[in-house]
Amino acid sequence: MRKLDEFGIDYIEAGNPGSNPKDLEFFRKAGRLQLKNARLAAFGSTCRAGLAAEQDANLQALLKAGTSVVTIFGKSWDFHVTDIIRTTLTENLRMIRDTLSFLKEQGKEVIFDAEHFFDGYRANPDYALECLKAAAEAGADCLVLCDTNGGSFPSDISRTVSEAAGHFSIPIGIHCHNDSGMAVANSLMAVESGAVHVQGTINGYGERCGNANLCTIIPNLQLKRNIRCIPEEQMENLSAVSRYVSELANMVPNERAPYVGRSAFAHKGGMHIDAINKNPLSFEHIRPELVGNERRILMSEVSGRSTILKRIQELTPWVDKNSPETQYLMDEMKRLEHEGYQFEGAETSFELLVRRVLGKDIRFFNVKDFRVLCEEHWQDDYSASAIIKVQVDGVEEVSAAEGDGPVNALDSALRKALRVFYPQLDRMRLTDYKVRVLDTDKGTAAKVRVHIESTDGEKVWGTVGVSTNIIEASWAALMDSIEYFLYQHHQELTAEVQQNTKPDVAL
Amino acid sequence: MRKLDEFGIDYIEAGNPGSNPKDLEFFRKAGRLQLKNARLAAFGSTCRAGLAAEQDANLQALLKAGTSVVTIFGKSWDFHVTDIIRTTLTENLRMIRDTLSFLKEQGKEVIFDAEHFFDGYRANPDYALECLKAAAEAGADCLVLCDTNGGSFPSDISRTVSEAAGHFSIPIGIHCHNDSGMAVANSLMAVESGAVHVQGTINGYGERCGNANLCTIIPNLQLKRNIRCIPEEQMENLSAVSRYVSELANMVPNERAPYVGRSAFAHKGGMHIDAINKNPLSFEHIRPELVGNERRILMSEVSGRSTILKRIQELTPWVDKNSPETQYLMDEMKRLEHEGYQFEGAETSFELLVRRVLGKDIRFFNVKDFRVLCEEHWQDDYSASAIIKVQVDGVEEVSAAEGDGPVNALDSALRKALRVFYPQLDRMRLTDYKVRVLDTDKGTAAKVRVHIESTDGEKVWGTVGVSTNIIEASWAALMDSIEYFLYQHHQELTAEVQQNTKPDVAL
Repeated sequence: MRKLDEFGIDYIEAGNPGSNPKDLEFFRKAGRLQLKNARLAAFGSTCRAGLAAEQDANLQALLKAGTSVVTIFGKSWDFHVTDIIRTTLTENLRMIRDTLSFLKEQGKEVIFDAEHFFDGYRANPDYALECLKAAAEAGADCLVLCDTNGGSFPSDISRTVSEAAGHFSIPIGIHCHNDSGMAVANSLMAVESGAVHVQGTINGYGERCGNANLCTIIPNLQLKRNIRCIPEEQMENLSAVSRYVSELANMVPNERAPYVGRSAFAHKGGMHIDAINKNPLSFEHIRPELVGNERRILMSEVSGRSTILKRIQELTPWVDKNSPETQYLMDEMKRLEHEGYQFEGAETSFELLVRRVLGKDIRFFNVKDFRVLCEEHWQDDYSASAIIKVQVDGVEEVSAAEGDGPVNALDSALRKALRVFYPQLDRMRLTDYKVRVLDTDKGTAAKVRVHIESTDGEKVWGTVGVSTNIIEASWAALMDSIEYFLYQHHQELTAEVQQNTKPDVAL
Repeated sequence: MRKLDEFGIDYIEAGNPGSNPKDLEFFRKAGRLQLKNARLAAFGSTCRAGLAAEQDANLQALLKAGTSVVTIFGKSWDFHVTDIIRTTLTENLRMIRDTLSFLKEQGKEVIFDAEHFFDGYRANPDYALECLKAAAEAGADCLVLCDTNGGSFPSDISRTVSEAAGHFSIPIGIHCHNDSGMAVANSLMAVESGAVHVQGTINGYGERCGNANLCTIIPNLQLKRNIRCIPEEQMENLSAVSRYVSELANMVPNERAPYVGRSAFAHKGGMHIDAINKNPLSFEHIRPELVGNERRILMSEVSGRSTILKRIQELTPWVDKNSPETQYLMDEMKRLEHEGYQFEGAETSFELLVRRVLGKDIRFFNVKDFRVLCEEHWQDDYSASAIIKVQVDGVEEVSAAEGDGPVNALDSALRKALRVFYPQLDRMRLTDYKVRVLDTDKGTAAKVRVHIESTDGEKVWGTVGVSTNIIEASWAALMDSIEYFLYQHHQELTAEVQQNTKPDVAL
């Protein structure tokens, strides 16, 4: 929440204290936070049919959250009133009016979410507007038109928002869902038609197909329409905020997400890369730095010689496109991709491959052999252990470790052995570990690609390993990951590499 | 391709024979297919600057593809002409004209993709239109306006398409990219403004943030605007086509994809589920059956008693919401979710849990113990083997297997042992195996959630296991998967279960 506040989000709606006691607990804790920009909002529905607002237990719970802002959702589609909550159209208007009046009396800023407004307006425009009017008359501070089922088209949204906004002098908001794949566009159309308040979620997380994605809407509005959503200097934190929230939500970040995805500015295919080298504007709608993202030149057979050459030249500037090393690497890469390797997202493994081929690699350590044993006795007693023998500068070290599973046991044993020689390894940790079955028709005998992401607290790097044996694939990715770390942190060696001097090693 | 043809796609653009010899090979094979609806198109660019069309090797390669339709992309943004391909504005018009005339002389149907048309029209509308005119005069059969960088807004697209379409009597097409998250909306706005031809990809696969997603556009247009894209009876195959293509492309299907995603009609949260039970229209923009998808009631603590009850009643119709079994399952589920289990996508594991709690489970087999050994000697020699002891109806069977990795060795040994008792197990296979690190800050010692998807060739089911030990987590998911298969295929037992008769087993 602190992150969203720093980022410059105006309102943070954080749960429904009436439906979930956990949420109430959250608001208790949140009350202690000193927010700089954002106002915290609790979320709840209008009072129940036949019940006075002050007698409604959910509204009482809402007040207990102690926020200065509350968001109240109410029905604005006649069908929902009669068929779902099963009351009369008049009673629903009473519920809206009473609930909002009651909350305004308590001194709250009240945002009214008109649920299913667009469906309601299609079915019975007069009644939908009456619901808004009831809210406005009761003192609502903002009327939010919701496309709750996500089925509306941009042109409908545009027309409906214009028409509705004409009736009110208080701010109009928009709340879209992505069931037709247009939540972002619909939100923007609403803004172009008069809405000044946009509801959405970071990364578009939300039920079914998700809510409107603020990580797309914010840069769309601010960078392309000059409509300020967050402080200008915060825009470069957009990608970081997106990744932070996906980490918290334990969701795999969407690589293809506009602006913030790892592939949003990734280029592959010789012609595009050639154009990007001439002028990035040619195939990029904005500069990736603006949103804290970066350009990536993808490793792939389609990407052609020039990409691979660029990578090679970062290490050895004197190699040109006709050098045998370039050809060899092209061939090697095709072979590996055919085998199932994918260097997109694992550029580190490719970089290490380049080093090896160019003879610019450093043998930080040798692994003589290892053995991993996993056992299960009497159903619930599992164990995994590993023994490993490594050699650094002629000195052997044998170590053993138990672990939570075979990869962890192996990882632990390896680090234990290597730490004797490289104590800085303590700073490195694994942040993600993914397994992808490649030839799914072969069941557990299928080839798997293991992708590991590691960090030293500053950089994040990805490595890859492919094998039919998950241990072997994990092992390859793990070794690459540690090797890369050692390149980065083994000061003297790094210095030599950065000078880009021709090494003594024969090519 | 046959799938897309059957599905009713009009044109299939299948590669650039000029840039990639593999693509040419593809067209050779494709030529032999008898397509029912679709026309196959090869893709290439206008001839090079200073070169006659008939002398251009890429165009010659394009002709070799032998398709009746060709798609030619050409520049329509002045900046790209002068700064990227570095020729004159006049020469670019000549290139368009010559290329199209040449291809028309060869009897081809020619679709002209005006690359970067929207950026070009913003920068220099007259020149952008001149490019279209050159193509039209040379005989283009369709002029496709491309938002190549994906940076345009729906309102811009709408205005530009209307203006451009006014100049031509031949069909206008639209080609959008998703860099601003609006490729679908932009395509629809173009159709509403006069475009009659939409380019996109299944699931929106494409560079950077993807192309316009046809799996969203087709139902949007056809179900909501009555614009026919595919034969009516094919619409229910939409989800299957989407999944088939993701399988072919070896991409994890996007759960949140509109219409076709596994979560597109998934409901969680007591109130929504209650409303859906009253009338699905309340929280669904279309009926999921229309696109061959299905409603899912998600297992989650938020989903409340009614969902869990529904599941329980499928097995034991006499249990009601106040039964101790319901409460026990609610508690058990909360505990497991807290531990890291996620039953969304692994409903099978939940179903088995319900069976166990209700005493409706069948002990198909007991595993006495197992042991897995993985070794590596001298760098490249990996091995994995497993020994396992199972017991079925008091009969013990010990078996051992080597495998491609520990899970496979274990899986093989288990199947080998069980096949003695259940030969039908041969029909079951694993189709996906996913590992998700839960507490990423703990490196390889982190808790992992393993998700396994299996099939018997007809049904697909998902199971889940959670542990800090990847073998244990895999093992739990694997056991559930096999157990579920045995329930489905053990005829006599299944019959008993389907009758829903109260079992003799005490609850």
